[in-house]
Amino acid sequence: MISFRSDYSLGAHPKVMQALMDTNFEHTDGYCLDRFSDECTELIRRWIGKPNADVHYFVGGTPCNTTTISAGLRPYEGVITPSTGHIYVHETGSVESTGHRQFAMPTEDGKLRQKDIETALMHHEDEHTSIPKMVYITQPAENGSVYTKAELTALSECCRKHNLTFYIDGARLGTALTWPTNDVTIQEIADLCDAFYIGGTKIGALFGEALVLVHPEKFDEHFRYMIKRQGALLAKGRLIPVQLKALFEGGEDSLYFELSRYENELAVKLAKGIKEAGYEFWVPHQTNQLFVIMKNEQIAELEKDFFFYTWCPYDENRSVIRLVISWGTTEEDVEALINAL
Amino acid sequence: MISFRSDYSLGAHPKVMQALMDTNFEHTDGYCLDRFSDECTELIRRWIGKPNADVHYFVGGTPCNTTTISAGLRPYEGVITPSTGHIYVHETGSVESTGHRQFAMPTEDGKLRQKDIETALMHHEDEHTSIPKMVYITQPAENGSVYTKAELTALSECCRKHNLTFYIDGARLGTALTWPTNDVTIQEIADLCDAFYIGGTKIGALFGEALVLVHPEKFDEHFRYMIKRQGALLAKGRLIPVQLKALFEGGEDSLYFELSRYENELAVKLAKGIKEAGYEFWVPHQTNQLFVIMKNEQIAELEKDFFFYTWCPYDENRSVIRLVISWGTTEEDVEALINAL
Amino acid sequence: MISFRSDYSLGAHPKVMQALMDTNFEHTDGYCLDRFSDECTELIRRWIGKPNADVHYFVGGTPCNTTTISAGLRPYEGVITPSTGHIYVHETGSVESTGHRQFAMPTEDGKLRQKDIETALMHHEDEHTSIPKMVYITQPAENGSVYTKAELTALSECCRKHNLTFYIDGARLGTALTWPTNDVTIQEIADLCDAFYIGGTKIGALFGEALVLVHPEKFDEHFRYMIKRQGALLAKGRLIPVQLKALFEGGEDSLYFELSRYENELAVKLAKGIKEAGYEFWVPHQTNQLFVIMKNEQIAELEKDFFFYTWCPYDENRSVIRLVISWGTTEEDVEALINAL
Amino acid sequence: MISFRSDYSLGAHPKVMQALMDTNFEHTDGYCLDRFSDECTELIRRWIGKPNADVHYFVGGTPCNTTTISAGLRPYEGVITPSTGHIYVHETGSVESTGHRQFAMPTEDGKLRQKDIETALMHHEDEHTSIPKMVYITQPAENGSVYTKAELTALSECCRKHNLTFYIDGARLGTALTWPTNDVTIQEIADLCDAFYIGGTKIGALFGEALVLVHPEKFDEHFRYMIKRQGALLAKGRLIPVQLKALFEGGEDSLYFELSRYENELAVKLAKGIKEAGYEFWVPHQTNQLFVIMKNEQIAELEKDFFFYTWCPYDENRSVIRLVISWGTTEEDVEALINAL
Repeated sequence: MISFRSDYSLGAHPKVMQALMDTNFEHTDGYCLDRFSDECTELIRRWIGKPNADVHYFVGGTPCNTTTISAGLRPYEGVITPSTGHIYVHETGSVESTGHRQFAMPTEDGKLRQKDIETALMHHEDEHTSIPKMVYITQPAENGSVYTKAELTALSECCRKHNLTFYIDGARLGTALTWPTNDVTIQEIADLCDAFYIGGTKIGALFGEALVLVHPEKFDEHFRYMIKRQGALLAKGRLIPVQLKALFEGGEDSLYFELSRYENELAVKLAKGIKEAGYEFWVPHQTNQLFVIMKNEQIAELEKDFFFYTWCPYDENRSVIRLVISWGTTEEDVEALINAL
Repeated sequence: MISFRSDYSLGAHPKVMQALMDTNFEHTDGYCLDRFSDECTELIRRWIGKPNADVHYFVGGTPCNTTTISAGLRPYEGVITPSTGHIYVHETGSVESTGHRQFAMPTEDGKLRQKDIETALMHHEDEHTSIPKMVYITQPAENGSVYTKAELTALSECCRKHNLTFYIDGARLGTALTWPTNDVTIQEIADLCDAFYIGGTKIGALFGEALVLVHPEKFDEHFRYMIKRQGALLAKGRLIPVQLKALFEGGEDSLYFELSRYENELAVKLAKGIKEAGYEFWVPHQTNQLFVIMKNEQIAELEKDFFFYTWCPYDENRSVIRLVISWGTTEEDVEALINAL
Repeated sequence: MISFRSDYSLGAHPKVMQALMDTNFEHTDGYCLDRFSDECTELIRRWIGKPNADVHYFVGGTPCNTTTISAGLRPYEGVITPSTGHIYVHETGSVESTGHRQFAMPTEDGKLRQKDIETALMHHEDEHTSIPKMVYITQPAENGSVYTKAELTALSECCRKHNLTFYIDGARLGTALTWPTNDVTIQEIADLCDAFYIGGTKIGALFGEALVLVHPEKFDEHFRYMIKRQGALLAKGRLIPVQLKALFEGGEDSLYFELSRYENELAVKLAKGIKEAGYEFWVPHQTNQLFVIMKNEQIAELEKDFFFYTWCPYDENRSVIRLVISWGTTEEDVEALINAL
Repeated sequence: MISFRSDYSLGAHPKVMQALMDTNFEHTDGYCLDRFSDECTELIRRWIGKPNADVHYFVGGTPCNTTTISAGLRPYEGVITPSTGHIYVHETGSVESTGHRQFAMPTEDGKLRQKDIETALMHHEDEHTSIPKMVYITQPAENGSVYTKAELTALSECCRKHNLTFYIDGARLGTALTWPTNDVTIQEIADLCDAFYIGGTKIGALFGEALVLVHPEKFDEHFRYMIKRQGALLAKGRLIPVQLKALFEGGEDSLYFELSRYENELAVKLAKGIKEAGYEFWVPHQTNQLFVIMKNEQIAELEKDFFFYTWCPYDENRSVIRLVISWGTTEEDVEALINAL
């Protein structure tokens, strides 16, 4: 059984494991009050060019999103998200569990745009209505599409015009930053938003996301209290920065970028094979996820040898499948799949 | 200044005030543990033909909705509502304040339909997604439209098929039940849903809504704890049933129906005048609210003598205004408005 | 059956009912956006000598407390209360429903003191602990005791020293202010605290509490959103200020003070009779509530003709009963009870 | 600098790291839907003798406690805890963040007893009060004390008598089970309670706690939804059971017990040295935490070479320090500390 199930289907890259082994016997304080956290934070600040950014570490995207969003809103304020956003469709109402509304905006292609924000803002009238106060997107979008610099700039300007906090979920940020047509740097992302996180779980780490508060003044001043209250402060907190340092060191030449490029390249190869085999894509392919339309009986056949998600029905006889390339996917895996089509 | 602002713009009908005066000096226990509550509950049970229904009293719609919805859901479950539903657009995220998601479904005409419920249900996949578990509508809908018996039956069947709790907000229920084309009785409403409330605030009372749990087993077994925790248990609780008894006694001949019919009749008269004056309606007029499209300068002119809401923009030069008939609106008020057009 | 059950066992004082009748047919806007609200707010501001105070109106104490406390705290902050405080023992965890901890401090006599606050403050260490940030008391205390000016001043100074918000629940404030030994004016209360409410429900109104934010900057800047989200914004909001104006007009000579004095005087008379009959009080009697120790069989006997609460067990054979004087209690009621002892 | 700071101050035991390395390249599904989770669950079921228990995996104690407690309570219900309990003093109101009250009961020695539960139960009267519905303790208690079988049996019987859910936090369960005077087995613990967790973070794992629902019917039937909504479902969920299997295999001879015994033995040695040096303990020493009373200047001196917590003030000149033995503490570390006294 060959897995195209997800980019969290195996452990960590050997260099990440090595970093954990190398530091295993050092005693430090808990809860990210340790030298590794400090070093990783400095590394990130230099990398993105924001010496005053706050950095916090989480074991996963959902606790990171829930804490950040609830720490950036008053009780009657809500967050605007594309209706396909991860917080809306795959976090079991974790945002609502903190009392906040999600304004889930339908989009044509999974990308939120200025007009969607403006439509959401019309919701607010007076004290009888919730106030949209934050904008959430993922880069790349849930369907793998990469926001361009122009698109991100338009969102950023719209947020600043309307005094909205702009938060970018970067669970797979590396794959966007290294996508061939990408025209936006991590430094520019830091310039354009108020907060974003750089995801490690899906690109080489056992777990770990680095939340960057570019504008910490837009969030609760006691942010660590919010993390702890959400149950999201890891006891051996250093495990996250130890891994992320191993991934992030070197900027453009970092392991993080290397693994991201690898995933993208294999994805391009797989996409080429799929197209040549005559299949259509649900959305134009970008980054390490491929959404392919396939007949249901064919899916059943493919499932005998391959492990993947059937994402959603397409029509009566066909469904969309999701194929994900991880850093552990091999050329052979991709060839095997192409051959099976 | 003549008011078409709302149906909660003046006090209570004189007979309701009289009922309060008549009982003013009787000592009773608080928190709806009194003979008036018992009597009104019995009255409602007989009226709707549900001897085992639970009845609870609230001072307003928002605390009633929030308590009922949160008492009918597990934390990860949410409520399906038309995107124009009162809980979604005019209660400041009160539902979300209890941790629950609203699945706000766009509709063509303000009425939720079976297909909207089925679309919402597709949201649920597994433990990563919220579960739609309740359906909320208002009768009449927020734009005044009256659901037909066929429509309510279809919703009810859909709910039963999918094991959804069906809850109807009847803030203006009387105006629906007495609308000329209405084909559904209050007894049939009780048959079709799991819970509904009969609103007094907007039809003759100072305040007061009677929540009927037709199927109390679908809600928290300690419902009064949920009311109190929500801050919605009135100390002098009897004030609500004292008023509602005065309104509800007599069934079809009750003051509640009399005032509702009066509001509807005046609304028909006003609608006729508006049409004859050449104006278009935003939605086909039903019940005591009229949504009229008007040029912005004309609205400004009208506001000199009349008090009403400008509901939303219609196009660049025109907006939708809302005109509401209350039990205290007079024929003269209506004529004055028609003459001013 | 003669009632000493509560001070919310009957309707409103006739002058309050008259005020409702007199204004019944005036159309106004809803949700306390009306001239009566403005007038009552001005009246209160002048009365307490705080021209910049914010005033909001609630139908009851629980929604007022829950809204005010949650609007004055960040999510990880909590409120210090005597363990006998109304929010801790009689509001079904309404404060916790908004996500905030109550630090319930045991007291000797029902009154919170500086040392209790300082004990609570020791709870806070760092991001692993909740932060006590507000102090809640009732004046008079739940057992009827009146805080002296010295006691309130000590609490106030302690709060200011530790940057705590000081909030006073005045459900029965009138009875404290008019108690013979009372040495603190309402103006001084306004000077000493950050927020307090003046209760109408238990002193002459059908319902209604006026929340005074002396320091509105210590609470959420969109306070009305917090009220609405809590489900506590009454549609016919004016009903509250209409009643409270009738009660509050005239300051020392107001109906509010007149009824409070009347309740206190009858309570003194009843206390005298009880003492002469040889009974002991659970706590030294002050204001309109009497807590009397009585043998259980005697309680059973008394319950045949009188309606009251058995508050708590005292020892194996005796319990504490609570007798409450309301504005509707008569001299005859009191004499009947004394004769029955 | 030698660390006695905590038992989460270094990485994982080498055998645990090896288990992670051995499984690193296997592709599995995420979120604990993998063979390692199944295998570890079976292992635990056999170990504790509960073939029908549900087992869930968490990265830490706080998300485990918050999820379990909120999944076992209705909104108006609360949890009884010793006032020194971890959920009350070191989780930043995470329980309250889910809307539930903690009934924090003062104890003489950090252990909750039947009488404390019964005192808490007196809080509940009717719908105006929260209902205590769950009992939470840690084994060992926060100060290291081990509950005896008799004590746990008394608590269990009290819970069953009053229909309370009994939940035991076993963050350091191994150190209790292997303490020389311990007289209760893990099988007996499973018999006595409704749920407990076996903690790995503090005994040899990088992170990981196994929650055992002995009586899953006492908790939400969709428990995994509760985990995800709390943000506590780890993407690479298998990392937890992979580690715990390595720790738990072998029962009495498991690595988990071996490390626990080692910690206890070193703790005994350290305690002996401390006593001989003339110091007093704050509480009688049990398990791997030592609470020692020391002069403040001496603490300052000791801090030059050793890293530990100053727990709380003892009197004007002295404080309590906490010394923790972890699996990575060496005999040399202990000797160094003894020599420094």
